[in-house]
Amino acid sequence: MRDFSQDHYWLSINTATVRKQWPLDRIIDECARRGIRAISPWRDQVAAVGIDPVAKQLKAHGMGLSGYCRGGFFPAADAPGRQAALDDNRRAIDEAKMLNAPCLVLVVGALPGALAGKPQYKDMARARSEVHDGIAASLEYARAVGMPLAIEPLHPMQAAERACVNTLEHALDLCDELDPECTRMLGVALDIYHVWWDPKLEQQIARAGAGPQGHQSSRLLAYHVCDWLAPTRDLLNDRGMMGDGVVELKKIRGWVEQAGYQGFSEAEIFSELDWWQRPGEEVLDTCIARHKSSV
Amino acid sequence: MRDFSQDHYWLSINTATVRKQWPLDRIIDECARRGIRAISPWRDQVAAVGIDPVAKQLKAHGMGLSGYCRGGFFPAADAPGRQAALDDNRRAIDEAKMLNAPCLVLVVGALPGALAGKPQYKDMARARSEVHDGIAASLEYARAVGMPLAIEPLHPMQAAERACVNTLEHALDLCDELDPECTRMLGVALDIYHVWWDPKLEQQIARAGAGPQGHQSSRLLAYHVCDWLAPTRDLLNDRGMMGDGVVELKKIRGWVEQAGYQGFSEAEIFSELDWWQRPGEEVLDTCIARHKSSV
Repeated sequence: MRDFSQDHYWLSINTATVRKQWPLDRIIDECARRGIRAISPWRDQVAAVGIDPVAKQLKAHGMGLSGYCRGGFFPAADAPGRQAALDDNRRAIDEAKMLNAPCLVLVVGALPGALAGKPQYKDMARARSEVHDGIAASLEYARAVGMPLAIEPLHPMQAAERACVNTLEHALDLCDELDPECTRMLGVALDIYHVWWDPKLEQQIARAGAGPQGHQSSRLLAYHVCDWLAPTRDLLNDRGMMGDGVVELKKIRGWVEQAGYQGFSEAEIFSELDWWQRPGEEVLDTCIARHKSSV
Repeated sequence: MRDFSQDHYWLSINTATVRKQWPLDRIIDECARRGIRAISPWRDQVAAVGIDPVAKQLKAHGMGLSGYCRGGFFPAADAPGRQAALDDNRRAIDEAKMLNAPCLVLVVGALPGALAGKPQYKDMARARSEVHDGIAASLEYARAVGMPLAIEPLHPMQAAERACVNTLEHALDLCDELDPECTRMLGVALDIYHVWWDPKLEQQIARAGAGPQGHQSSRLLAYHVCDWLAPTRDLLNDRGMMGDGVVELKKIRGWVEQAGYQGFSEAEIFSELDWWQRPGEEVLDTCIARHKSSV
């Protein structure tokens, strides 16, 4: 297992972590100033600054991406809605390519309309089928341009609104169905916030590393960290800073590295009540400190 | 599948549903007045009235129990703590017996201290091992007095504070380990609020019905309903009335009955922001109406 205690060489910052403090160009400068080598930006943050300036700024700093957030949201109540989702995912893939991302993270979607409080249907099997088909269609284009897709299983408390893929096992089942040759064009983004509770986590991480039928290729395309607070006061925006909650971060990173993952550890903290209220400088400095002490 | 549309013969009321409105003796009277044949009371509600008066009142009304809430909370930071938990579970089993409950529901516990915001350790594997051992020890006594234990898998968002058994699959694994002969002294309480999101739900419900190695006995000892609201505003007390959320209640009851379950459908709604604010009479009348229309 890699030693993170001496530096933050493998730290990436998901830019949602300081989205309330700064626009993306400032975030990039502040990360560069601290020797942070990679970020994972969100599409709306990129759009607000403009993708060409962002690409130039990243290049000037020699800064890379650990992922691009996000594609997905495939289910829809009708065919035009599903086509619109596919078109949007194609644009997301193009953007990820322009920014030289290692993968596009997919938050796959769930019951259409549920995020706005008006679910248009309740059939989870249908939502899952539409997710399957949406990934299959997007994967075709992703392969053509060479942009890996990373399915992110979300916590089951997000199953209605954001993602009906809620376990690593389910995400890997999809990978095996849609990419049986394990080409590394389809894998998973493993965010410990969403999966830490799963009694099958160690087993499924090992499966992700082994690939199907004894392939060596790893399905692990991205690794996100924060912490689970006890108590948690909000279903979306009460994530903890690494070390402040109950997740066994080092144990899980050990499993992930055992499975072959050697990439960035991406800090992604949505925190309305705490970290979004603090100065961005303090948040980034704390991410660096906790990356060394707790991840 | 049974027809629930004509009457509420198979409705049970979990007494937490109107706990903010009434003490248990009033709840029993109000349920009896409406022809509700069964309740599932909580230990603190029983203690507040006294177990002997409660037993007499139930008998006078010819009212039964669909379960008794609750035992569990096995993990502790030290041996005296674990022994205290076992002693308390023994008392809960005795009370369940005095009230002629068909099962004692187990909320198994998780990281000790986490419920009070001060987790005493973070090792989920240890918590799960202590849960395993705690159920094993309690099962011995439960067998001796003839009181079935029903493991309730809780939603993964409760994994730190209340139960580290978060899927039906995990609960059934424990049943198979601790009661391989499928004696009906150990099974599960299936609450749709906790498990509705699970892509393996249908498969695991079928497994619960079949029992291990082709046994016919069902592991399904209790069935709880409410609904999952989108959005959900609180991790504990924002459950929806049946029909107001996104859960496919009839589909899931179909699976449960296919697996052999023919008992009560127990309405259990914790709702700080809505149903606990309404008159108890309205809550019970709505449970009856929704039992017929939506369950």
